[in-house]
Amino acid sequence: MIFSEIVIVGREILQGRVLDTNSNWIAIQLRNLGIRVRRIFVVDDVKEEIIDAVHSIVVRKPNIAIFTGGLGPTFDDITTSSVAEALGLELVEDELALKYIAEMCSRRNLPLTKERRKMALLPKGAKALKNELGMAPGVYFKHNNIDFFLLPGVPVEMKYIFENEVLNYLKNLEGREYYKEIYIEVHGIPESDLAPIIKSYKEKYEPVYIKSHPRGYESGLGYIVLHLSIFTGEEKELKLLDELKEDLIENLKNRAKKIAIVDSLK
Amino acid sequence: MIFSEIVIVGREILQGRVLDTNSNWIAIQLRNLGIRVRRIFVVDDVKEEIIDAVHSIVVRKPNIAIFTGGLGPTFDDITTSSVAEALGLELVEDELALKYIAEMCSRRNLPLTKERRKMALLPKGAKALKNELGMAPGVYFKHNNIDFFLLPGVPVEMKYIFENEVLNYLKNLEGREYYKEIYIEVHGIPESDLAPIIKSYKEKYEPVYIKSHPRGYESGLGYIVLHLSIFTGEEKELKLLDELKEDLIENLKNRAKKIAIVDSLK
Repeated sequence: MIFSEIVIVGREILQGRVLDTNSNWIAIQLRNLGIRVRRIFVVDDVKEEIIDAVHSIVVRKPNIAIFTGGLGPTFDDITTSSVAEALGLELVEDELALKYIAEMCSRRNLPLTKERRKMALLPKGAKALKNELGMAPGVYFKHNNIDFFLLPGVPVEMKYIFENEVLNYLKNLEGREYYKEIYIEVHGIPESDLAPIIKSYKEKYEPVYIKSHPRGYESGLGYIVLHLSIFTGEEKELKLLDELKEDLIENLKNRAKKIAIVDSLK
Repeated sequence: MIFSEIVIVGREILQGRVLDTNSNWIAIQLRNLGIRVRRIFVVDDVKEEIIDAVHSIVVRKPNIAIFTGGLGPTFDDITTSSVAEALGLELVEDELALKYIAEMCSRRNLPLTKERRKMALLPKGAKALKNELGMAPGVYFKHNNIDFFLLPGVPVEMKYIFENEVLNYLKNLEGREYYKEIYIEVHGIPESDLAPIIKSYKEKYEPVYIKSHPRGYESGLGYIVLHLSIFTGEEKELKLLDELKEDLIENLKNRAKKIAIVDSLK
């Protein structure tokens, strides 16, 4: 098993000014890679808050910690320096990061100012991750046996670096799992009545995870979407999901008004 | 100042299956009330994870902690019991909660099963918050000088309880602040060049918060949105925002290709 935690840095999200979609996008990528996300934090652009989140991560010991936001040139872009401070790492001007920034300056016909050079200050030994769509490089380093990735908050830049740099690291990690899921829409049986049925299947089909999501009740046409999902290190265990699906449909078909396999939760 | 923290409970969000919009909606309401959001957590439907988040909140001592998700009838709806365990509170069958649940059962013509009764188990001394749109009541209690609100994860139910119950509590809190903000779109000056200008205004206009957001760079038509915002206990300080706006526009108008006041970040 590989556990990951995600830290979104940005006051605009805490103020409700921007809907965070970065954590959702990253969570999808990680799930598709067979990596579990155990915690998402949204923290303020305040040194003490970032340090607090890093300390909490060091205690919780995920395998991977991915940060987004706060890598830019302004005074409140303090993610890298705060993470370094939290971990007791020295910041040094990184040659590769500076090269990336200088290339981008030259491409955009901009001078290499002090503010831009600041983005090349990385924890000693870290690796700069190339950002083709913006000025701030991403940052990778390993510390306390945790892989740290610091990525920009601008979604296209974050995605670019994730797909072109982070993905290569993650693909090579040992311990990734198989993942499979099925959604079943059940009409005509309230969630509270499904609850004991689901519970009765829980042990038998361990490690399949069964979650019920009520949908549409506000319109009076309520139904339940059952989400069956499995993370497992054993490929052969994936068939448990199909067996559970058959079992559930057989059990519910006479009681439900309608049962259907659907694509997603909506 | 009133600080709030938000905890979103739900594996579907950590798996990237559902985009969390509850925290954004709550953050907007709190900001409009003059309450600051300092941290958002997304945690798994796992007892130890919820307990860990509660312990972290108790250490961080916000004035308010709002939880959403995990109040329903199924085996993995464990928010209330986990929060209670984390705080050492006894769970008891609450008369008012049971009445609400029984009324909803009767309205929907459903029996009051064991699973439904489970939703009436609240920390001793807590107050049930009426949910007109679903079965699970919300929960309010004060502990360690923190106001805890536990709300359902289904957005319409969460919003209903927030607007009809939580809001009345929050409106009566002392220490709420005034909030005001302005967005200024600046074309033709890169973020790294704006950075020292913004920094030079920072101290002069304290406590105004200035944040630059790069937009549209991937299309080659990049510009910066400056978000000026102020939280203050002194109504008269709000005018600092307008003074800063004038000052900034005056300073930038000859250098920028275009400056415009806009409605939002987009």
